[in-house]
Amino acid sequence: MNTFGTIFRVTDFGESHGPAIGGVVDGIPAGIEVDYELLCDWMRRRRPGSSPLVTARNEADEVRFLSGIYDGRTLGTPIGFIIENTDAHTKSYDNLADAFRPGHADYTYHAKYGIRDHRGGGRASARETAVRVAAGALAMMVLKQKGISISARPVQIGATTDASLFEQVILDAKRKSDTLGGIVECVVKGVPPGIGEPIFGKLQSRIAAAMMSINAAKGFEYGQGFDVSRPGSEYVDNFVVKDGAISFDANHSGGILGGISTGNDIVFRVAFKPIATRTGKLATINTNGERVEIEVKGRHDVCVVPRAVVVVEAMAAMTILDALMLDTARRL
Amino acid sequence: MNTFGTIFRVTDFGESHGPAIGGVVDGIPAGIEVDYELLCDWMRRRRPGSSPLVTARNEADEVRFLSGIYDGRTLGTPIGFIIENTDAHTKSYDNLADAFRPGHADYTYHAKYGIRDHRGGGRASARETAVRVAAGALAMMVLKQKGISISARPVQIGATTDASLFEQVILDAKRKSDTLGGIVECVVKGVPPGIGEPIFGKLQSRIAAAMMSINAAKGFEYGQGFDVSRPGSEYVDNFVVKDGAISFDANHSGGILGGISTGNDIVFRVAFKPIATRTGKLATINTNGERVEIEVKGRHDVCVVPRAVVVVEAMAAMTILDALMLDTARRL
Amino acid sequence: MNTFGTIFRVTDFGESHGPAIGGVVDGIPAGIEVDYELLCDWMRRRRPGSSPLVTARNEADEVRFLSGIYDGRTLGTPIGFIIENTDAHTKSYDNLADAFRPGHADYTYHAKYGIRDHRGGGRASARETAVRVAAGALAMMVLKQKGISISARPVQIGATTDASLFEQVILDAKRKSDTLGGIVECVVKGVPPGIGEPIFGKLQSRIAAAMMSINAAKGFEYGQGFDVSRPGSEYVDNFVVKDGAISFDANHSGGILGGISTGNDIVFRVAFKPIATRTGKLATINTNGERVEIEVKGRHDVCVVPRAVVVVEAMAAMTILDALMLDTARRL
Amino acid sequence: MNTFGTIFRVTDFGESHGPAIGGVVDGIPAGIEVDYELLCDWMRRRRPGSSPLVTARNEADEVRFLSGIYDGRTLGTPIGFIIENTDAHTKSYDNLADAFRPGHADYTYHAKYGIRDHRGGGRASARETAVRVAAGALAMMVLKQKGISISARPVQIGATTDASLFEQVILDAKRKSDTLGGIVECVVKGVPPGIGEPIFGKLQSRIAAAMMSINAAKGFEYGQGFDVSRPGSEYVDNFVVKDGAISFDANHSGGILGGISTGNDIVFRVAFKPIATRTGKLATINTNGERVEIEVKGRHDVCVVPRAVVVVEAMAAMTILDALMLDTARRL
Repeated sequence: MNTFGTIFRVTDFGESHGPAIGGVVDGIPAGIEVDYELLCDWMRRRRPGSSPLVTARNEADEVRFLSGIYDGRTLGTPIGFIIENTDAHTKSYDNLADAFRPGHADYTYHAKYGIRDHRGGGRASARETAVRVAAGALAMMVLKQKGISISARPVQIGATTDASLFEQVILDAKRKSDTLGGIVECVVKGVPPGIGEPIFGKLQSRIAAAMMSINAAKGFEYGQGFDVSRPGSEYVDNFVVKDGAISFDANHSGGILGGISTGNDIVFRVAFKPIATRTGKLATINTNGERVEIEVKGRHDVCVVPRAVVVVEAMAAMTILDALMLDTARRL
Repeated sequence: MNTFGTIFRVTDFGESHGPAIGGVVDGIPAGIEVDYELLCDWMRRRRPGSSPLVTARNEADEVRFLSGIYDGRTLGTPIGFIIENTDAHTKSYDNLADAFRPGHADYTYHAKYGIRDHRGGGRASARETAVRVAAGALAMMVLKQKGISISARPVQIGATTDASLFEQVILDAKRKSDTLGGIVECVVKGVPPGIGEPIFGKLQSRIAAAMMSINAAKGFEYGQGFDVSRPGSEYVDNFVVKDGAISFDANHSGGILGGISTGNDIVFRVAFKPIATRTGKLATINTNGERVEIEVKGRHDVCVVPRAVVVVEAMAAMTILDALMLDTARRL
Repeated sequence: MNTFGTIFRVTDFGESHGPAIGGVVDGIPAGIEVDYELLCDWMRRRRPGSSPLVTARNEADEVRFLSGIYDGRTLGTPIGFIIENTDAHTKSYDNLADAFRPGHADYTYHAKYGIRDHRGGGRASARETAVRVAAGALAMMVLKQKGISISARPVQIGATTDASLFEQVILDAKRKSDTLGGIVECVVKGVPPGIGEPIFGKLQSRIAAAMMSINAAKGFEYGQGFDVSRPGSEYVDNFVVKDGAISFDANHSGGILGGISTGNDIVFRVAFKPIATRTGKLATINTNGERVEIEVKGRHDVCVVPRAVVVVEAMAAMTILDALMLDTARRL
Repeated sequence: MNTFGTIFRVTDFGESHGPAIGGVVDGIPAGIEVDYELLCDWMRRRRPGSSPLVTARNEADEVRFLSGIYDGRTLGTPIGFIIENTDAHTKSYDNLADAFRPGHADYTYHAKYGIRDHRGGGRASARETAVRVAAGALAMMVLKQKGISISARPVQIGATTDASLFEQVILDAKRKSDTLGGIVECVVKGVPPGIGEPIFGKLQSRIAAAMMSINAAKGFEYGQGFDVSRPGSEYVDNFVVKDGAISFDANHSGGILGGISTGNDIVFRVAFKPIATRTGKLATINTNGERVEIEVKGRHDVCVVPRAVVVVEAMAAMTILDALMLDTARRL
């Protein structure tokens, strides 16, 4: 389905090379002042063409709001918005109408629907994440009023964990016409204790679903995550009481216990694969299952991680706000 | 929320030391023969007390079906069932009514609800996973008819990845009154290509949500997961066409591309933390935020991984069946 | 689906002659004192066998709570409950295993599922409404704290609108072995202005869905309803401002404008058909589509209206509470 | 909430005088040929300005598809579309910024959100139904392939049930600057037996929710509906078996038994109130609760019924398709 969230919800539509992509944000509180600066900043951080590290596709990615905002404030009614597709080099994809690029969703979309828009990955293109960033920015405007901040950053690119080398390793890979994966870490500050639901609505479950829905995400962990080699005695989180406020000293739990926020920072990491697109001639198959050779000319990122950072923040913002609103509903 | 799924749904209830836990399975196809052997086998695999490796709490965990089954077949109507709590040593928890065990959900439930059933972890107890196993077994009965199999196993316990040593390292930890985490790998075979939805309904997103909702789960990955150190050129998945069937040679993608199944095996891993419970005297705080010392006497696992294996399978079964049914809905 | 509601939700299970019926109430606020008197009163009002006007089936209809309540207060976790089926005269239905009673859901369940529990109407039996009454009583306990009251009553039985004759016309119909329909009116007082959502979540839309889900309900109207013969000039609702409070003088709108409560009384009516069951020999068809004659011996109501009154109240209580909680979620 | 449906879903946005209204249709099967003629015909039937009977607002109401359609066929991905607001006489509403029109949703939106777009009714305007008609037309394209037809017509306007007089009574009311309500009857043919879910997902419950969500709808009934004056013995539906097909002779049940379709025609009726808008000077109150006089100059219908007919069909189409798809999901 193309809707995310329970109370704060975004419904997302659009193919990479259709007339426009867009979304509908439903459930936002009324009277929130729209912070266009925050929106533009987030859209810019995701936009291709803004640095030598990312794809050359260059679009303004201007968000056009169609409803739900009046005199600069949210009405409480759904906010429909569109982002026009203006720089789609559709012709680059003509030769791909009947062939499947290896490592892409071309084949699985064909298997599912029997029909697809092959241009630029169609619905499976990462262009769709622009809608998430716009919707996430709206959620962030509400969270800021509640004193909540969200900040993500790359902590690994390829085999490198030294942040000062990230730009260099990406340029190296570009020179070799190769691609790189990496890991993004995100910290959410200011979430009060008690947010998240038990059992299937656990906060980590919602955040994991949000993160794993991002293109190229292959893994999610929070707190100590996959680092399971140490015994429980080395993972002790003791209570700290300071000025009446309760917290945990080590925060091994990553800010969540039993699916519910502890009040400590929520800390999680998302792994992104090196994207599959290589340019040049590739052996593959066509829609008849016959072996063919295709030439891939599209413009693509060497590494999705730099642009994925703000997408992680956007999805986190929507997830946290939705959880906050769900919790608020009980406090009538 | 305590409901999982869109078409095939389970709603789960129950505290560890209340009269019973139970669930309602809604959306199951009609006319499915109930395979009691499969159900008993799965319940037994999760049950405590069945080996020296797991907690001594010993309950028959008999699933009592109350509806939705007639003459050994599903009616298509909801299947309500309960599992009585018969071996709850409630008195062990009397001293915890006003104190929070560190590393447990005691504090977060208190923060959320202002009231809690402190006995045995209440709603946050892993006892609740018995409901998931019963519901997952019902899902598995349907999947078997569609030629789908699911198989999980531990691949790491503490720092050990050698499976032949797993029992030993758990017994070692028990001797030291310590606890261990670990990693479970799950393989789903036989899912046809085309299952899963785009964008927010991606198959990996649903599976991640399912897995991260399990008690003590701290991480999820599929395919190459967090192993991002190699460049894209080393992760190539080439098409294989054999007897008209399309697949991928290396399956780096873990059986999913663009959120949709490829037809290859779906392969994912879940990390579980070493559980927090240590026995004996512990420094903590009470509901007034005052420092207190408590003595923890409950019976608990050294390592949740052995019992978590079947819970992973159960959640996978429900997720895959739900995705299959959602896909089927489109093919009217 | 067998779940009702968005935040305050009930999931309902059970066949008329299976071991038990029951439900799971999810989303209830924590810390609500359980008012057993209210619950018993509501269950008694729905119970068969309590007067010569209703079916002779006599069951205690005792609600057994299994979770979500501790020390007489709600925990905020799901409340699972069951009601045992103790007085099911299953043998009365043996001859109906392969035949469809005309005017009942026997045929449609068979068409849908290909299998059914024919005993006492199975899932389609009005016995299921006991679950709604129990769940609705829990919702009512919350609403009472918010100053909201709900009161329904019959306003027509058969052709009679004179309430003092209702008992007589039912007894007359019983003597003739006939059945009667009727109309129930319900008034909800104390709902603040602003409750209900726009467009598809309109309050009247949710209430209509709730009411039309009750067995034998054939019509719903609110405010002026089907009385469309007068022109708009005769339906004017003027504002009244009294002590700072805004209301409408005539309340033609039935307490809702644009899908949102006005603060006036919410007034609606539900039409119930005369139930189809007649006793004695009936011509019908069997599962092979062959004409057969059956003898119907089950015990049934002459008129569902007296017992439906509290079911209407119960469904109204759940709908209003859910709408209140949804509105509250926005006010974070 | 602004989303309707479970599998086939429409999410609706837009204020009457904002830049555009629009929607996102999710869950539509892939490969459906878009029937632009059907779409245009339905949009034309709803459009104002097309006859002396309806409001003079004149907009092309051109539906601009932004996604989900490629080469004239549905992709299975969400179909985003917008309808620009081109003929909004915004100035007519300047004097209403701080006043509430009696009988409109002005006051309730203010009570709910504390902010509103007062121009032309904002979100509460019937202009929003254009989105429903576009989405319903897409659903209808799928239903036609399944042999299902939907046809609605007015059966009462004001006090008149003689269809040949409908135009006359509307013109009479217009002359008197008055408004009229009426009743629309809708017949759905070709729905196979077995569609609809038990208990809360009953087909009549879903249809009622759909219809009562339409602006100005005040009542819903199906089959015998509110006509409860006759006893059960006069409402007998006997089985008819003809050429192996099972149906009911009288269809008193309106095509639904136990919430599930019988295979007979589904027949229901919707009552619409005379709309509140009267032109000229009106006494009312402002946002401070003070008595004021306003002059209402907007262009409005005398009677919504002629234009509501296609909205009823559109909502019916979406509801039936959604129920069909939900049923299909079980038949995997």
